[in-house]
Amino acid sequence: MSLLIIGTMAFDALETPFGKVDRIIGGSATYAAWAASYFTQPIKQVSIIGGDFPKEEIAALEARGVAFEGVEVVPDGKSFFWSGRYHLDMNTRDTLITDLNVLAQFDPKIPDSYQDCDYVMLGNLAPAVQISVLDQLKNKPKLVIMDTMNFWMDIALEDLKKVLGRVDLLMVNDSEARQLSGEFSLVKAAKKIQTMGPKYIIIKKGEHGALLFYNDKIFSAPALPLEVVFDPTGAGDTFAGGFIGYIARTDDYTFENMKAAVVIGSAMASFCVEKFGPLRMQELKPAEIEARFEDFISLMSVNVEVALAVTV
Amino acid sequence: MSLLIIGTMAFDALETPFGKVDRIIGGSATYAAWAASYFTQPIKQVSIIGGDFPKEEIAALEARGVAFEGVEVVPDGKSFFWSGRYHLDMNTRDTLITDLNVLAQFDPKIPDSYQDCDYVMLGNLAPAVQISVLDQLKNKPKLVIMDTMNFWMDIALEDLKKVLGRVDLLMVNDSEARQLSGEFSLVKAAKKIQTMGPKYIIIKKGEHGALLFYNDKIFSAPALPLEVVFDPTGAGDTFAGGFIGYIARTDDYTFENMKAAVVIGSAMASFCVEKFGPLRMQELKPAEIEARFEDFISLMSVNVEVALAVTV
Repeated sequence: MSLLIIGTMAFDALETPFGKVDRIIGGSATYAAWAASYFTQPIKQVSIIGGDFPKEEIAALEARGVAFEGVEVVPDGKSFFWSGRYHLDMNTRDTLITDLNVLAQFDPKIPDSYQDCDYVMLGNLAPAVQISVLDQLKNKPKLVIMDTMNFWMDIALEDLKKVLGRVDLLMVNDSEARQLSGEFSLVKAAKKIQTMGPKYIIIKKGEHGALLFYNDKIFSAPALPLEVVFDPTGAGDTFAGGFIGYIARTDDYTFENMKAAVVIGSAMASFCVEKFGPLRMQELKPAEIEARFEDFISLMSVNVEVALAVTV
Repeated sequence: MSLLIIGTMAFDALETPFGKVDRIIGGSATYAAWAASYFTQPIKQVSIIGGDFPKEEIAALEARGVAFEGVEVVPDGKSFFWSGRYHLDMNTRDTLITDLNVLAQFDPKIPDSYQDCDYVMLGNLAPAVQISVLDQLKNKPKLVIMDTMNFWMDIALEDLKKVLGRVDLLMVNDSEARQLSGEFSLVKAAKKIQTMGPKYIIIKKGEHGALLFYNDKIFSAPALPLEVVFDPTGAGDTFAGGFIGYIARTDDYTFENMKAAVVIGSAMASFCVEKFGPLRMQELKPAEIEARFEDFISLMSVNVEVALAVTV
């Protein structure tokens, strides 16, 4: 089933304890599209880029079934630029530079050829931009998922609440879930966010995995314990892309299948952090992906003989 | 199969954001014995208590198959006392008072009737005391597991290394694993600790679950996401008791069965934190325990169709 992804396509400058890159391709929609492309094609991309966005990066995405009709190119504009430095624990980072550039004028237009999308991912963007996309969809998608961040909670909470009221699934990290809900317990946080609109909540916990909430049900997926996290940039967007790519591929958005999709998203994210930027995502081989799924199944699988566990 | 547990039996004073208790029963061997008793009996307890240790607490443990022949009673002595206050996040705490009392003179004697134990749990104690127990065992147990803490790494590292060289499994929390190994990555930490002796390492991550390492294999068990953690005291010892109780019950110490035991330990720990001290552990009903196991299986279980996940 076809998939619509909206988000940023950008340049990043990254500094981790393992090295630095001054200018590498990035952006939420870039990572999400790469991850999703291993499961479903076509992907109908919506974004905005400057004339400086590399032709070969566009060609590489097109070769993976990513449509660019909805990607506005501003020939004499510069693409969004973000620069960050990670701390030693890799869980925290400082933003050094945020140059919106063409993103400041982003007013997405959904082409007619995108109107058949059953699955929609609203990447982390201004809530007003996310709403604009939903307003332009003529048919109700089967599933709309969204990402957001603390920044929008700080400066655009009312708009954010409007988006929340119109999506099926919210994907945030643990600190964002706590900020949005005002609850420390993630169980209470998820319950409160469910009253704001989304029936499904995914709370990403980085190296501690992810939780999926639906009604009173909870699913916990581990992250792959790694010897080295080289660069966490884009891991959350890669998770989202793997998740929605698998949902679109299977055309099954039940809670049971979402559990599998969370594992798929986690597996894809575990690749993402192995190299700078999206480099690892751009070179994946099917056999590597399948082997990584097997690693996750092995990491999680257990046979508890409940019958034996009766008290003596 | 019978199980030997050595550790403290004590009084605790506890303060959490939800209230305080001035004097409640505690100690690593108390929690471990309660948890293990739901799976295997008899439990051969080794500890030291003062004349102030309540008779009814001893009777309650005896009623659950806990043998006291190896528990030294110092009639005019006072039991070990610990007092602590938990921070709001419940993951950190301050020790307010540590009165060793009779624990200062603890020189455990293993009775002849304990020599048939196939499974041994060395609770958190001075490494020299843990070694003394191993020295007194005439038959090699099938499995020896141990707990320890940062305190012993600070003041008795050489002794601790001697114990590590003689046990099969080490159980520590994440910060202790990092301190002992000097490695930040838990995968690297586990590998390094494996070279010190124990073939199996369990790293407890509190609300983030636990990791089991054996050779190059890793198993990740979730913690049950909870709305309220009332009092975390004893959760780690309860985990250990549930783990080794299940291993002893099934008489199966393969890696596969240890994975199940980690889930059992996590389930028992999820009860422990629901009330102050060991109160919840003392009132558990078989049906509650079985229902909690089902919750864990539901929390973890996933059906990923790997065949579908081949790249398109």
